[in-house]
This record gives sequence, structure tokens and C-alpha cells, in this order.
Amino acid sequence: MSKYTLGLDFGTNSCRCLVVDISRGREVASEVFEYPSGVLGIITDAADPNLARQNPQDYIDGIRSVVLAAMVAAEAMDSGFSAENVIGIGVDTTGSTPIPVDVGGKALALCDEFYGNPNAMAWLWKDHTSTAEAAEITELAAKMHPEYIDKCGGIYSSEWFWAKVMRLKRVAPDVFGAAASFVECSDWIPALLTGNCNPLTLKRSVCTAGHKGLYCDEWGGWPSEEFLAELDSGLVKVRDSLGGEVLTADQPAGVLCDEWAGILGLPAGVAVAVGAMDAHLGAIGAGCREGTLVKILGTSTCDLMVGRSGDASIPGICGIVKGSVLPDYYGIEAGQSAVGDLFLWFVNNHVPESYGGSVGEKFANLEKRATEQSPGESGLLALDWNNGNRCVLVDQLLSGLLLGQSLHTEAHEIYRALIEATAFGALKIIKRVEWFGVPVDEVVCCGGLAEKNALLMQIYADVLGRPMKVSASDQTCALGAAMFGAVAAGKNAGGYAHIDEAQQALCGVRNEVYEPIHENVAVYAELYALYELLHDSFGIAEEMKDLGHVMKLLLEIRQRVRGKHVEG
Amino acid sequence: MSKYTLGLDFGTNSCRCLVVDISRGREVASEVFEYPSGVLGIITDAADPNLARQNPQDYIDGIRSVVLAAMVAAEAMDSGFSAENVIGIGVDTTGSTPIPVDVGGKALALCDEFYGNPNAMAWLWKDHTSTAEAAEITELAAKMHPEYIDKCGGIYSSEWFWAKVMRLKRVAPDVFGAAASFVECSDWIPALLTGNCNPLTLKRSVCTAGHKGLYCDEWGGWPSEEFLAELDSGLVKVRDSLGGEVLTADQPAGVLCDEWAGILGLPAGVAVAVGAMDAHLGAIGAGCREGTLVKILGTSTCDLMVGRSGDASIPGICGIVKGSVLPDYYGIEAGQSAVGDLFLWFVNNHVPESYGGSVGEKFANLEKRATEQSPGESGLLALDWNNGNRCVLVDQLLSGLLLGQSLHTEAHEIYRALIEATAFGALKIIKRVEWFGVPVDEVVCCGGLAEKNALLMQIYADVLGRPMKVSASDQTCALGAAMFGAVAAGKNAGGYAHIDEAQQALCGVRNEVYEPIHENVAVYAELYALYELLHDSFGIAEEMKDLGHVMKLLLEIRQRVRGKHVEG
Repeated sequence: MSKYTLGLDFGTNSCRCLVVDISRGREVASEVFEYPSGVLGIITDAADPNLARQNPQDYIDGIRSVVLAAMVAAEAMDSGFSAENVIGIGVDTTGSTPIPVDVGGKALALCDEFYGNPNAMAWLWKDHTSTAEAAEITELAAKMHPEYIDKCGGIYSSEWFWAKVMRLKRVAPDVFGAAASFVECSDWIPALLTGNCNPLTLKRSVCTAGHKGLYCDEWGGWPSEEFLAELDSGLVKVRDSLGGEVLTADQPAGVLCDEWAGILGLPAGVAVAVGAMDAHLGAIGAGCREGTLVKILGTSTCDLMVGRSGDASIPGICGIVKGSVLPDYYGIEAGQSAVGDLFLWFVNNHVPESYGGSVGEKFANLEKRATEQSPGESGLLALDWNNGNRCVLVDQLLSGLLLGQSLHTEAHEIYRALIEATAFGALKIIKRVEWFGVPVDEVVCCGGLAEKNALLMQIYADVLGRPMKVSASDQTCALGAAMFGAVAAGKNAGGYAHIDEAQQALCGVRNEVYEPIHENVAVYAELYALYELLHDSFGIAEEMKDLGHVMKLLLEIRQRVRGKHVEG
Repeated sequence: MSKYTLGLDFGTNSCRCLVVDISRGREVASEVFEYPSGVLGIITDAADPNLARQNPQDYIDGIRSVVLAAMVAAEAMDSGFSAENVIGIGVDTTGSTPIPVDVGGKALALCDEFYGNPNAMAWLWKDHTSTAEAAEITELAAKMHPEYIDKCGGIYSSEWFWAKVMRLKRVAPDVFGAAASFVECSDWIPALLTGNCNPLTLKRSVCTAGHKGLYCDEWGGWPSEEFLAELDSGLVKVRDSLGGEVLTADQPAGVLCDEWAGILGLPAGVAVAVGAMDAHLGAIGAGCREGTLVKILGTSTCDLMVGRSGDASIPGICGIVKGSVLPDYYGIEAGQSAVGDLFLWFVNNHVPESYGGSVGEKFANLEKRATEQSPGESGLLALDWNNGNRCVLVDQLLSGLLLGQSLHTEAHEIYRALIEATAFGALKIIKRVEWFGVPVDEVVCCGGLAEKNALLMQIYADVLGRPMKVSASDQTCALGAAMFGAVAAGKNAGGYAHIDEAQQALCGVRNEVYEPIHENVAVYAELYALYELLHDSFGIAEEMKDLGHVMKLLLEIRQRVRGKHVEG
């Protein structure tokens, strides 16, 4: 009799439940719930484009909807399935997405006093209102505790926990005053399901805490009281409220509480794993292990690897956190700020109607014509920095560059040059981690571009000089969550003793692999040398007259000019 | 009773006759003849996109057509006009556009033996088949006579006389063998009209000979026998055939011969001026004098100035020839390879349908939206090198560059950045000539962009920090030709003693002047400093790892890859 686990995946616009038959190693059914609040699930503010919040009620409604629907679908797909055979639940969410809560762990946005108040909701990962606070944290850490930011590329992001909490205190002191604590979405969902919502005892994810909350065993867990007090005395109270263990996702957060067992029609006592962030569990679902780089290719990209040693920081890599991917390894996260977004910007703004009437047609014709070209044939070279450079320069103030245009350059040639630029950026990351001793023997891709863009995948194979594999699952995040649900349930319950076993049973790659083409590899090696020259010339400034200042000076002029407009 | 002269202007696709009332200082009428041969008057070769020839019969038919039609129109416009009152004819043509001729000066393409043979036709200025020969000339001159190319930017162009003659000998030895000489179009038309077609005695233009034929008093006229013999022994014969005086355009080539007087219904004895090239007579028509830079803003731009001294060569300036513009000054020619062409390329290839359905609508909307922007607001900066850099780098192997793109950059912002890039390139030229002692106190523009593109004119005013004036005449080339017709006729016949007088009577600028806007000037000064940094970084290579190699290496890779395609 097969055993099943559920992977609950909480994304930016929707949540999903994936039912996995862990005994036979296959995905059975999945269902999606689109968040009803705001615009595509995001609460926005017309006056501030940086604001992005989520309504915690959407999470609650979403769990009920997707679990019930997925189980109905599973019964239809698999006669062996029954709710009685579900032994575990795993959870992945976006992050950092902290939620202010009361002493009982209830989201303040669901309490009468702050009902519907965006500041009392979940501060979604892509909320960028905390830029000033992030800069303060970076500055203080550089002076007082450089080790705090050493492993996240030297810059604390406005997307992260402490910046958002600081910001909340400044813009909504009433909400801050009422908050007993702040709980990351990745921790709040398992707390809800297990009925252990007390911020002082609920289990927190080392993945989220480590990558976003400056949590690290090396300095005794959360950042020091002195450090937080120097930033803002109110943060000390928050630190004190972060009780409970900080764990890897193979550990149980607890078991499904009676209330939720009743709602979902599942047996009480089903294991619920500690949560983690979506990209990291996506890496698990794609088979991330030592030597395997998992590339999540979407609007931006996220590269996940694991390493044996976390002693050395790797300059320019977004984050290195013990246990954030595989429990026994350091999880290493890197990424590029704009990949799919870069192509979408190009198609929306710079491609004439001769390529088609719709975005889809334009993409199809760009791909068709760019595929007919050989590497180097256009004479173009680009930098992929339209949204700044996340790795390895960690500099949001960089911008795009294209060179080599003639009077005959056509749109599909630029499209290909942009894809190539992102591939060169990807190679830069691989070279950086390899230099610091992290092997990259295999690249497994997932995400929309990996599945849909054959041109991109071939270019990446040729630029990286490695076969590009595609994960068999197209729901690797939910699959990773379900796998940790099976480990949290344990061997005795019919699950797995260790995540390795789950990966062996459930992970795989598709048959079609993009193999590097010898002569393309050679041309791209030449082009990469030129890319590196541009990269270092425009990305690094030493002397006053360096080109490395140009993009920043343009941005300064731009902001000054726009500022005048606002005044005037 | 008013006196009149005719300005005959031979362009790339058509010729024109302008009737000018020199007594009252006004243009009376003009008529155009579209060349019937080939595609828009150009004989092309599907197998070789570099080939561009013209049928000399088109010139002959054109003269008859435009002169007769213009005089009919003049009679209708001005009751005082009659053919009897025409005292002079001036001629401007494209160049270098050499025509192989027989001993009598008849174009070989009009002789039975070579009738309709493109190699026996006029080799139009834009014929680029002679790249290899031009490179040989440059190389030999650099070794043997560096002074030959010192004043044309150090590079002999494939568009110029000796390269074309050499090429002809290689590809069509039969035509070369039959040619008694080669006559520039600028010299062939006056020869025809005066009936003095003998290559040994016809009058040649110092403008064309100097800028295109390596003719200079300093080294005794045409390039030395030794030099030409070293290139190709056949060229010595050509040199020997270049008889007759080489003169400025204020000199008479002769008087209208009876045959043509009969054809055109004009009095025999009308003065015919020595010819010159279109841009140079355009400068005359726009009022070029010491301190006045005339900018001809079209698909590319041509900058004409005059200087008192030709002793010093100005590095990076296309040509410096005594008497090529004003008889008593050194004519200084500079220019940019792609201006209007750059915008047309952009609109045709990189602007989506949201800006309009036609090229015209797209241009209108780009201009409208770009006009709403302030300098520096887009954060973009470009180099205007899509067709190489003519001045001051004199490097055809450079290419375009755009930087500063975000994920929000729109097409009209790039359009504005491209206009700004051409303005920065224009400023670079002005700074270069000023550095070498040529004053630029006034800028007068003519050409299509000057008349139609108010955004461009304002940006140029702001970048150059000078008022941008527009020539009153929109047919400055034909006007300049007519003015030299009046000087060739002389004071006694009712013309002018000197071109100065003609300019005072006939040249002017429009009332609307584009004045620099103080705050824009300040921002553009900052942006120009960044442009210069890019310009020098990518345009000049000293060390091996310099960015100055990048564009050339990309071109090398591109040519290698394309070469493989052809082989494969």
C-alpha cells in the first residue's frame, strides 16, 4: 500500500498542493489556488510602487482549498490514494516574507484592531520599501560585525527580515507596538498546521533565518543585542521574541493539529516538516547534491549548490547558510537579477511588428531567427545588468549595455545577444564558486525558461561548456516540500530516513539533454573573454576616471533631473 | 533688368536646375529630373552590394530636361525672366564619381564597344568595390608619402578616385585599356557644356581633385609618378592624361558651346564655372565663411569650414584642401558616418507598433515623447558609431554602443540617446578644429534633418552650447553652384566680382534660431564628459587588454564565423 505526502508551495500569486506517491516515486496530482486579495494576490499602493504585501487570510483559505482539491484529484488519478495514507506535509514559501503576530501567533492583519491594514499583513519578499533601513544595516554591520554580511555578498538587502521590521517600526509604530513578534511565512504555515503558533516556541526555518535574518550558529544565532540596539532599540524586543528552535527542513515542526486535521479530512498526527524557502526546496526537488548546481530559470535566476565547508565566504555570492538546502551541507545561493524579465522587457519595448502581432508571436519569431544564427555572427555583445548585478558584483546601481550594433542589426540579433549575456553572467558565477572550491559537475535546470526556451538552453550549454539537464518535475518546489514531509514522517511511518533516499526515489532529469556543441564552445570562449573585460571595466571602479563610475554617474544625473521635475 | 544664373546640381538619384535672380538676390524656380537608369538612378549588381554606378546618358538627358523645365517655370514665376538674361551656369556634383572617357572625352559607356557596361559608366561616390585598392594606397602612402594622406585623416577611402581607377584596371582591363583618361563628374559636366571635353585640356575642380585625387600644390599637383608606378604601372598613364588646369569654382571653365546653347535655348557665350562637389557648394549656398561652420545634416553629416592656414594638418579631419570651398581659404571637411541613417535604422528595426503603424507615425511619436524628456532623464548614453567613425577617429571598424538600460527603458528614450550621441560626436569635431586654431563662431545647418527635426536641432544647440541656425535656402548646393556661375560671369556681365559679394546678396538664415537652454547645457556638459570617456576607451587602443580592441575583435569573430558559413 503506497504512502503519500503533500507538498504545499506558497508563491507570489498563488499557492499549490502537490500529492506525491512516495512509495512508487511519482507525482499524483496538484491543484492551485489564486490568492483573491489585491492584484494577483499582492496588496499594492498606487503612491508607492515599492510596496508589496500579502493577506495572511489568503494563505489560510489557500491551504484548505488546494489540499481538499488535490486530494479529490489524487483519488481520481490513483485508486490507491486515500487521505488515510497521507503521512506527511512539507511547506515552502517565498521569503523573506515576515508577518507581524500577536502573542498567540495570530497575524495582526486578521485581528480586529488592524484588520485590512497593509502594514499588519505579510511583507512580501518583493516589498522594497525598506531601502534606507537596509543601507543602515549594511553600514553598521560593515563597521561592527563584518561577518554578518560576509556571506551574503557584503550587502544586506531591502527585501530581508530586519530591514522590513525596522521599516515597520518607523512607518507604523502602532502596528509595531502591538506585534508580539514577527514570523516568516515559511514558519507561520507549519505553525498554523501544527497548532504551535506561539512565537516563543514555534519552530523556525534555518533556511529563512540564515539567508534573510542574519541567523548563524557561528555568532550564537540571531544578531547580537548590541548590534540591534545600535540600529534601533525596538529591535531588541523583537530578538527576544524569536523563541523556539531554528531547524533544517528534514525536522518535524510537529504533527497536524486536530483542528486542521478536521478541516482537511486528514488523520491527526500527520507529520509536518519545518518550512523553507521555495528556491531551496526547488533545488531539493531538482536533485541538488554535492557537485550539482540547480538553476531556477525564471524572471530572474536562482542558483543553488551545496558545499562541505562554510568557513570561507565566497565574495559576490548571495548567501551561504548551513543546512538551508541539504541538512548536512552548507547551502550556497547565487543568482542573476534579470533573465526572463530582460527578454520580456525587450519584446515589450523594442521589437517591431514585423516579428508578429502578439508577445507570443514575437517571442516565437525572435527564437526562430536567432536560432538560425551562429555564435559571434551578429558582432554584438551585451551586459545583462538592466536590473543591476546580483552576483558576483552585488551592485544594484549597474545598468545594461549593448555594443557592436551596425546599421543592419536586427531585433533577433539583440535578443540572442541578451540571452548570451545572461549565459556569460551564469558562467561568471560558476567560475567564482569553483575558484572557492565548490565543484560544479552537473547543471540541472528548472523553471519556465528551462522548459520553454530551447535556444536559451543550447546557448547556456555552449557558453557554460556543460550539458544542460532539465528537471523531470515541473513543480520542483512543491516536490521538494513533499519530500521533506516524507523525511519528517520518518522511515517507520513509511517515509524516508534521510533526504538522500527521497531524492533517489523521486528526482530525475528529462531524457533530452542540451549538449555543448564543440565549435560553439570555442567561439563563446572568445566572446566570454570580451564579456569579462566589459564586466570588469564597467563593474569595478578603482580610479576616479574609471569606466566603473559611468553607470552610477548616469544614475545620479538621472535622479537629480527627475528630482527637479518633482520639485518643479 | 535682372540678371540670372543657373545652378545645376547632380545628386545621387536625380539632378536639379535652380534659376537664381542674382540682381534681386532670390531663387526663382527649380526643377528636378529623376535619373531613369537602374534603381533610382543607380546601376547595382545583385551579386555585389558594394557596386554603384551611374549612366552618363542620364546626366546628358538631365541637363536638357531640368534647364528647359526650370526656365519655363521661371518665366511663369517672374515676368522679368528671359533666357537672354541668363549670364552664367554653375555646377555641383557628387564625388568622387570618375568616368572613363575616350580621347575626345566621351564617356566609354556611351561608345558602342562598351555600351551599357557598368564598368565603363560613372563610378558613383558610394561605390565601395575598391576597398582592397584603397588599403594598398593607404599603406603605400604611409610608407612613401605620409603627407599625401595627412590631410585626409590618414586613410585613403575606397570611395575615392585612385582606388576606383585601380579597381577598374583589375576587374575590367579592356575598359581600362580603352580609357584615354578618367574625368570626375564635377569636371565632365562643365566640359560637356563648354565643348572642351579633351582630357588633356578640360578644366578640373580643385575641390574634387584635392579631396579625392591626392592633388595638392605642395607636392606639385597630382601624386608622383614613382608613387603611382609602385601601386600599379598603369596609373602613370592615367596621371599623364590628367591635363588642363585644376581650378577653384569661381573660375570659368569656359563659355556655353553652340551645340548646348542651341539645345537649351540659351545665348552662346554664357559663362560656365568650374565645377565642385555638392557638399562644398552647399556650404557656399549656406553662407560658409571664416568662423562659420556649415553642417549638412542628412543620412550622414558633412561639416564644412574654412581656415586661413593649411600648414597644420588636423588629425582626424576628413580633408583640408586649398580653395575647395572659398577660393582664398583652405576648405576643411569633417563629418559623421551615420546620423539620419542611424535614426532610420532604429525606427525600422527597434520600435514597436505602439508608436504607430508607419515609419512616419513612429518618428512623430518618438519625437513627441522624447521631447517631453529632459537631458539626463533616461539614464542612457550611446556612441554613434553604427557605421564606424569618420571623424575624429577615422575608423570604419568601430560599432555602436548603448548603455544605461533598465527594465523600463522605452524606445523614445533610446531615440533621444541616439540623437544626443550624434550631437556629442559633432561637438568632438568642433573641439578638435578649434584646438587647431579654426574658429567656430556660428553654426548654420542645412539638409533634411535641419528642416524637419526640431528635437534634434534643440539637442544640438544644448550640446554644442551654440545657437543652431538654419539656412534660408533649402537648395543650398544648387544655390552655391548658381552663385559661382555669377562669379564666373563676372561683374561686367552683371554678375559678381567675388564670391563674397554673391554670399552677401544671396545667403541668409531663417528667423527661427534654436538657442541653447542654460540648464540643459549644464547637464549635457556632464554627459559629454562621460561620452568622451567612452569615446576614448572604445575608440583608441594602446595596450593589448584595452577596451579599444573590443569592437574590432567582435568584427573579426563575426567575419570569421560568416566566412565559415559561406564555405560550408
